[in-house]
Amino acid sequence: MNMPTPNNTLNIETVLKKIERTRQARRHKFYLRDEKITLSHGSGGKATHNLIEGVFAPAFSNPLLDTMDDAAIFGPTESGPRLAFTTDTYVVSPLFFPGGDIGKLAIHGTINDLAMAGAKPLYLSAGFILEEGLPIADLRRIVASMAQAANEAGVAIVTGDTKVVQRGKADGLFINTAGIGLIDTSRSIGQTQLQPGDRVLLSGPIGDHGIAIMLAREALDIETDVKSDTAPLHSLVSALLAAAGQDVHCLKDPTRGGVATALNEMALSSEVSIALDERAIPVRPEVRGACEILGLDPLTIANEGKLLAIVGQEQAAAALNALRSHPLGREATLIGTVQAEPQGMVFLRTEIGGMRVLDMLVGDPLPRIC
Amino acid sequence: MNMPTPNNTLNIETVLKKIERTRQARRHKFYLRDEKITLSHGSGGKATHNLIEGVFAPAFSNPLLDTMDDAAIFGPTESGPRLAFTTDTYVVSPLFFPGGDIGKLAIHGTINDLAMAGAKPLYLSAGFILEEGLPIADLRRIVASMAQAANEAGVAIVTGDTKVVQRGKADGLFINTAGIGLIDTSRSIGQTQLQPGDRVLLSGPIGDHGIAIMLAREALDIETDVKSDTAPLHSLVSALLAAAGQDVHCLKDPTRGGVATALNEMALSSEVSIALDERAIPVRPEVRGACEILGLDPLTIANEGKLLAIVGQEQAAAALNALRSHPLGREATLIGTVQAEPQGMVFLRTEIGGMRVLDMLVGDPLPRIC
Repeated sequence: MNMPTPNNTLNIETVLKKIERTRQARRHKFYLRDEKITLSHGSGGKATHNLIEGVFAPAFSNPLLDTMDDAAIFGPTESGPRLAFTTDTYVVSPLFFPGGDIGKLAIHGTINDLAMAGAKPLYLSAGFILEEGLPIADLRRIVASMAQAANEAGVAIVTGDTKVVQRGKADGLFINTAGIGLIDTSRSIGQTQLQPGDRVLLSGPIGDHGIAIMLAREALDIETDVKSDTAPLHSLVSALLAAAGQDVHCLKDPTRGGVATALNEMALSSEVSIALDERAIPVRPEVRGACEILGLDPLTIANEGKLLAIVGQEQAAAALNALRSHPLGREATLIGTVQAEPQGMVFLRTEIGGMRVLDMLVGDPLPRIC
Repeated sequence: MNMPTPNNTLNIETVLKKIERTRQARRHKFYLRDEKITLSHGSGGKATHNLIEGVFAPAFSNPLLDTMDDAAIFGPTESGPRLAFTTDTYVVSPLFFPGGDIGKLAIHGTINDLAMAGAKPLYLSAGFILEEGLPIADLRRIVASMAQAANEAGVAIVTGDTKVVQRGKADGLFINTAGIGLIDTSRSIGQTQLQPGDRVLLSGPIGDHGIAIMLAREALDIETDVKSDTAPLHSLVSALLAAAGQDVHCLKDPTRGGVATALNEMALSSEVSIALDERAIPVRPEVRGACEILGLDPLTIANEGKLLAIVGQEQAAAALNALRSHPLGREATLIGTVQAEPQGMVFLRTEIGGMRVLDMLVGDPLPRIC
């Protein structure tokens, strides 16, 4: 098997070959049969991958895009620093929900995509689509929330754009944020970097964001006070990288599609297997309860303030300590290990002692979660 | 008057003071009275400025944003190169129109925003909002058009995102493109840089894009073959900068709001006056005819493949020659001059010898033009 060398130095030929093989494997796995866009294509799960691999990836193919990480990494000049560049559009409904709003989410989400590339977030853009009739008071509240989130995280919104569409042609407002971050090491972090023996760390309990949105949206008779976990994760990442040095192989925030989808993407990209221990995965009782009532699997529910870290075995304990020492990682746990075979698969050792394949999210139980 | 020094070296205190005064002046000029979003807020004209100055600018204020140029310019590290960063969202209706489609427009528009900052476009992001039910054949056609436009312009789409909303919550698809470009000179190009005596150059006939969209949208009994002028302007800008050296003070592509709005923005930002000669402004007969029938002023109609260049008097002839030597600038003309007074105003010497104030676009005769 053509693994990255243990010290993570980048052999460009190896990486390109790996990317090509992964793309071939994905094309085989992801096949777009649909003739029209369905809500599932926005799930972040299997249908989204079908769409990406069936339409976007072949048309736009280039070495930076083909890694399919959440951010593209490049050096604009030979001698200058490396930068990370990412984009995300937010269509969450409702616009305001327990724990946050679409504006805060748009800032945190793009900060997190940069942080997961090991980058220090610097600058954001903001593109708005406003529906005719949107109360300007709502817009002011969302913009104030964005400004506060950006200030607190130490990033600046430096460029923007506003469009308006007729009533009934959008849903209140949609926001796109793109972001630029600075990478100040030669470390290669990404979903092609997993190695057998690596440990899988999770920074805290899962499912809060998705369930909070679900409960805010539906008039359900479930009394809980679940709040979105939306949070900027860049300082948690800094702490982790400081503690575990060159041994952090991949970082990913399990948003749409949840932990199950994020880990499947890694297993496919790195051609490894991931084995999880279900009992080790923290889920708040109220989230678990809501999932049971609604027939949902917490492993496929979106999070907006959690991260998965794949860390070499030697540094795993130090990495876990670093996460737990940070306010956003106090409940961090070791949830699994990376294995060589069978490639591209994620397994779950269940609470009752069985073993099941954990696939990506199929369908979309919670459309417009972010 | 506190003008930039003639050689365009950047005195940071002067620039910041200028920005602050301009912002004060703008707040006075632009006052947001509305309680709800209207289509005019998306026009690119006066109502858009009211919204930006009333909501976005005060909340997000920072030195990079406050210049209000189409791209933000920064050096991510002290020693490294300067970069330009910009974003634009595209909601044009219909998705396909004579001369182009929403995808081509999204690539060209962001390339042009980078080029107007004097930057070489490098990388683009693409964020899609898809409406449930969109035919995947339409999406494929748009994505292929984006890929072709990017390839032809030598830029790569390196990161992306896809969201789906329910039927009736969007209008087919919307695209956001953000872009990063490289600035390889110390030249300061921007709308605070105009100086009395500068010449105003226009790269070709105006109004084609707006009228093409209007005619594609409405079942009007006007028989013409007006096509959108959508084009990537970065190589035209390269030719211009090579010819006119440090004497190019500002570049702007007059999109939403047209030439009238673009020049008013410059006059306000630089605290100068601009005098135009109406007879010198090229408008194709078929565009002029359509404007007369529809009661529109070509000076307020969107263009997607034209630029305004403000050039010091000495180099104006060389600049005009450079534009005319390029396929996209063959019909370039000198249309006016910059004057010291009255600050913030644009005047038009009309064809019949009169003089009128040319204001920004008020209202929005052509919503969703880009």
